[in-house]
Amino acid sequence: MAPARIVEVPATATGFDARRRCRYNTWDAPTSGLAPGYLQANLIVLPSRYAHDFKVLCARNPVPCPLLATSSTPGEFDNLTSHMPGIEDDRIAAEIDIRTDAPRYNVYVDGKLQKQATTTLEPHWDTSDHVAFLIGCSYTFEKALTVAGLTPPHMLHGRNVPMYRTNIPLCPAGVFTGSTSVVSMRMYRSSEVGRVRDITRPYVTTHGEPLSWGWEGMTSIGINDINKVDWGDPPVTGHGFKIVQAEQEAEEDGLVPVFWGCGVTPQEAVMKARIPGVVMSHAPGYMVVLDVEEEEVIGKAL
Amino acid sequence: MAPARIVEVPATATGFDARRRCRYNTWDAPTSGLAPGYLQANLIVLPSRYAHDFKVLCARNPVPCPLLATSSTPGEFDNLTSHMPGIEDDRIAAEIDIRTDAPRYNVYVDGKLQKQATTTLEPHWDTSDHVAFLIGCSYTFEKALTVAGLTPPHMLHGRNVPMYRTNIPLCPAGVFTGSTSVVSMRMYRSSEVGRVRDITRPYVTTHGEPLSWGWEGMTSIGINDINKVDWGDPPVTGHGFKIVQAEQEAEEDGLVPVFWGCGVTPQEAVMKARIPGVVMSHAPGYMVVLDVEEEEVIGKAL
Repeated sequence: MAPARIVEVPATATGFDARRRCRYNTWDAPTSGLAPGYLQANLIVLPSRYAHDFKVLCARNPVPCPLLATSSTPGEFDNLTSHMPGIEDDRIAAEIDIRTDAPRYNVYVDGKLQKQATTTLEPHWDTSDHVAFLIGCSYTFEKALTVAGLTPPHMLHGRNVPMYRTNIPLCPAGVFTGSTSVVSMRMYRSSEVGRVRDITRPYVTTHGEPLSWGWEGMTSIGINDINKVDWGDPPVTGHGFKIVQAEQEAEEDGLVPVFWGCGVTPQEAVMKARIPGVVMSHAPGYMVVLDVEEEEVIGKAL
Repeated sequence: MAPARIVEVPATATGFDARRRCRYNTWDAPTSGLAPGYLQANLIVLPSRYAHDFKVLCARNPVPCPLLATSSTPGEFDNLTSHMPGIEDDRIAAEIDIRTDAPRYNVYVDGKLQKQATTTLEPHWDTSDHVAFLIGCSYTFEKALTVAGLTPPHMLHGRNVPMYRTNIPLCPAGVFTGSTSVVSMRMYRSSEVGRVRDITRPYVTTHGEPLSWGWEGMTSIGINDINKVDWGDPPVTGHGFKIVQAEQEAEEDGLVPVFWGCGVTPQEAVMKARIPGVVMSHAPGYMVVLDVEEEEVIGKAL
């Protein structure tokens, strides 16, 4: 379980501040609630020969894999090209170093997780070849949920968001075949689900509205135990301030799980397709924070 | 089964020619092979209050629902706004009348199929309210397959393409919940699947590369009998010039089914969500042909 750090976050922190803290290791927790209002991004870094297929994968699966930006040329870790309508390249993330500016990273070799939650990618990055992809993150719409009085339970408790594998197939793209979507989960009362859907719908570049909700919705996407997370921390209820020990307990509180597309999906895709060579990513929940403010991208892709 | 009309198509037919033939009922067959090289489009026409949710549905599910164009204002059947990068509105389809320019149409009332394969939508169209959506169609890449010596079997026999419901969930959007993708199918030798995937991959605005392939792929997406089509004609093999009577027969010929996203998906979504009021569509396989040439849109969304 991640320590509760929310109280340490100044409400005025910017994306730039967040990246600097991560670079100098003065922030070492999930980034949920850090620099509210700034876009957060998932990261996947691939050998350049898989870059085109991965772009096709994102174009075909924009809900789990909304592409925000890529390395401008192979090998570059400090120069990004924007895929966000109306956002120029130099406004994405000033002075970024992709290799150091997330709190924690994973490293995969030949499709297998080799190094978990390391603080830098510098020893692994091939400056002549690796291509970075930044993917939208659902942390982005948590401010809007909070403003509406629907603060996600994991934020209240300073925990990482629960994440799960599902049976929802990705549309395949080149070498990326046989994968399924990863989802993040926030628990709400049944009566709140409509508002939660409406509030998150405009966030098309950061997973948008939920993929599934309710206890039946959970089993229909292949999740059998809400407490068995594949990444992040097991869920807590936002109302009882307690860890969910059983589905029944949450049901008694009138709570249902709500699932969104999740930018950990590319890591799952890399493992499923057994991508050869060195692939890198952020550690799930430990994101790259950008300079782009959420107001600049809401609904812009429609 | 549709009559074999392929021999009647002049190779020089344009999108404009095709629409005129449909309007004056001198073409009354599936449009596969008609006006080769011109974009073909699926159609769905919705009450304006569902237009925004449907746009979100397309944005979230671009493989089955690649949005090409919409009515410029509610009620309009002769004025389209382009969603294709680089294609201006006035270049989509000159002098189009959405209500007459496909060979056949379906009409749904309160989510139920009310009228099947009618030749005109004029009696059903509310000129103050209905909004048309044109969705990419896999017929568009059949020319490229043919040029590569991979003519789809249904074209060789002048039949409609086989289409099936699947268990592949759509990402929900507003009122459009609980639906699954529809797929079209073309049968190829296993050894040809790699080339077929490569050839169709760049056609991102017309379903792109396949969603699934092979006999195991078929059952994994919820299709149990290749001969039980939900729309179109049952499959024929391209090699033996015979109707596939059994999976074994095709397997003996080394053939496997290959499945693409299909623009009949919006009709399935309308039925699954039980959309109130009058909804209209083309009849599956009987498309609207546009003035846009496929070379103008290949790979453009990437």
